[in-house]
Amino acid sequence: MSTQAGLHTPMSLKARPSAPATLARCRELVEPALRKAVLGLHPGPGRIASHAFGWCDADGTPTSGGGGKWVRPALAVLGAEAVGAGEDVAVPAAVAIELIHTFSLMHDDIMDGDERRRHRDSAWKAFGTGPAVLAGDALFALAVRTLAEAGGAGGGAAVRQLTVMLGELVHGQADDVLFESRPWTGPGAVGLAEYRAMAARKTGALLACATALGPLLTGAPPLLTDALARAGRQWGLAFQAVDDVLGIWGDPAVTGKPVHSDLRRGKKTLPVLGAMALDPSVGPRLEALLGVPADEAAVRRAADLVEEAGGRAYALRDARTRVAAARDQLRAVPLVEHRVDELVALSELFLDREL
Amino acid sequence: MSTQAGLHTPMSLKARPSAPATLARCRELVEPALRKAVLGLHPGPGRIASHAFGWCDADGTPTSGGGGKWVRPALAVLGAEAVGAGEDVAVPAAVAIELIHTFSLMHDDIMDGDERRRHRDSAWKAFGTGPAVLAGDALFALAVRTLAEAGGAGGGAAVRQLTVMLGELVHGQADDVLFESRPWTGPGAVGLAEYRAMAARKTGALLACATALGPLLTGAPPLLTDALARAGRQWGLAFQAVDDVLGIWGDPAVTGKPVHSDLRRGKKTLPVLGAMALDPSVGPRLEALLGVPADEAAVRRAADLVEEAGGRAYALRDARTRVAAARDQLRAVPLVEHRVDELVALSELFLDREL
Repeated sequence: MSTQAGLHTPMSLKARPSAPATLARCRELVEPALRKAVLGLHPGPGRIASHAFGWCDADGTPTSGGGGKWVRPALAVLGAEAVGAGEDVAVPAAVAIELIHTFSLMHDDIMDGDERRRHRDSAWKAFGTGPAVLAGDALFALAVRTLAEAGGAGGGAAVRQLTVMLGELVHGQADDVLFESRPWTGPGAVGLAEYRAMAARKTGALLACATALGPLLTGAPPLLTDALARAGRQWGLAFQAVDDVLGIWGDPAVTGKPVHSDLRRGKKTLPVLGAMALDPSVGPRLEALLGVPADEAAVRRAADLVEEAGGRAYALRDARTRVAAARDQLRAVPLVEHRVDELVALSELFLDREL
Repeated sequence: MSTQAGLHTPMSLKARPSAPATLARCRELVEPALRKAVLGLHPGPGRIASHAFGWCDADGTPTSGGGGKWVRPALAVLGAEAVGAGEDVAVPAAVAIELIHTFSLMHDDIMDGDERRRHRDSAWKAFGTGPAVLAGDALFALAVRTLAEAGGAGGGAAVRQLTVMLGELVHGQADDVLFESRPWTGPGAVGLAEYRAMAARKTGALLACATALGPLLTGAPPLLTDALARAGRQWGLAFQAVDDVLGIWGDPAVTGKPVHSDLRRGKKTLPVLGAMALDPSVGPRLEALLGVPADEAAVRRAADLVEEAGGRAYALRDARTRVAAARDQLRAVPLVEHRVDELVALSELFLDREL
């Protein structure tokens, strides 16, 4: 294998891998298996799933394009390839991860009342709440089944890891919703440590599982599996930090959400918590602006306040630090080098989302 | 073991096992492990789960009694014991089954808009739709995790069976909902075979999995596992047949649902399909009564029509036949005899629900 030999080649001597090319390659590898798995569903939940994946309109007319960016299944493919595993391991791991991701979006959109997702109506908006609940359940069950049937030396360990991650997802989502109703200041306020624990579960767990699932399935050494899981967890926190910035200052045309929406909903996000940590006067001023039903001007002043106190820069710096730390961790263990390069290139996309 | 020796002792020479004593014994065995598992959940979904199990009020005040009848976990315990397995197998199987059952009730109540469950508010009614979706997801994840961590010779096979069953549950629920909007007569009408396939999935799959999960986990011979799964499937169909009778003629004070509710909702149930099979004139008359927005008198006439055509008796006969067939199947294979006696006594409860 070229891996070990090339472990210390300086990056500057090689062509940098292209993240879009990696995403396209992984999608080509995984999508046929995902389509086949979804085809086995009942036609009702099956159509809702196909709509969520961007394969058809709400009325069932086939469409091309759409769907997500396939970052998570690509992480799963690369995680498997980074320990030298083949398609037989990479593909079921990636299918399971994309199914779980889509299940969680479908149910989270119900909980959060979000009407748009991936530039189309969210599942509950297009098909109704009951059908969206059921379709999410169908994807959840299909994910566990896909992994349970993949076999492999570490089949049991992989399924256990998936179920632990699912528990974390639920826990993180429950905290995120609960935090919305907690105050901005005082003894009941959400601290940075609590936020990080929530984000590590809500967003980090799925990415950690994505990178580690293939290695677990193929029975890779814990040193490698753990390094990939830790990197995935860091990327999850970085992704969430950038998502938090987008949730306040993102372009509504790109995010599909109204401007300042996270502030209006009382979401405890990293820019806000960072600003409060940097400047103790921010908390009481935010409370005054947002603690009562807030008009548009008050929400705009709150966003400016967070930015002026350095909260936006704090969150983006946090994201960059985590992406760099994950890169260094991966380079410190004997993984297939060019797959690590692809993983690192992919992780830089997390920092480069349209702000 | 006493099993093989006593295989042919006539029932009349022995004390008949008492189903309530069996339910109480199994509950005592399983409930501590279930409570421990639920205690590990996030407090938000945890309280919703505790409410569903009858352990606390909606505000968290501890209550005693309440919850379900524990038939499904008892089937799981007895299935394990019937192949000679111990508590280490019986308990995680039973916990997983009760968690899945409660998850499916929670999500089905959202889809069906049912406000009452187990003589209290359903989860979405008491806590809101979003929290009930999340709590169901938490129970689902916990069920798979409980089983995945149980280990045992057949851990992988047991997890695979659980995930196949979950797919069947979703498929059956999707059909059941879809059938409501199909006509009573004509080429689009639901036939008996379609109904049975739906009920075998929606209700039969969970009971089949309950009886077979312990045997799978312990690596019992397929002859025994299959016999238990087939018996569970029959009991599921019998349970559904009686449930269908209760859904039309049940006492609202007992069922918690308005009288004739299944007819009003256009549900395609066994008494109706049986009546239409026995008397071809029933279909068009039902269509005339229920095909348009029906008043109370029309719904009552429809119920009388189904009963007069023999639909109610048809469904109850179907249930009795299945319970008897399951009993004979179990007695034909070398299972631990007194556990089979307990299973048979328990299955007779399905026929004896308050009508």
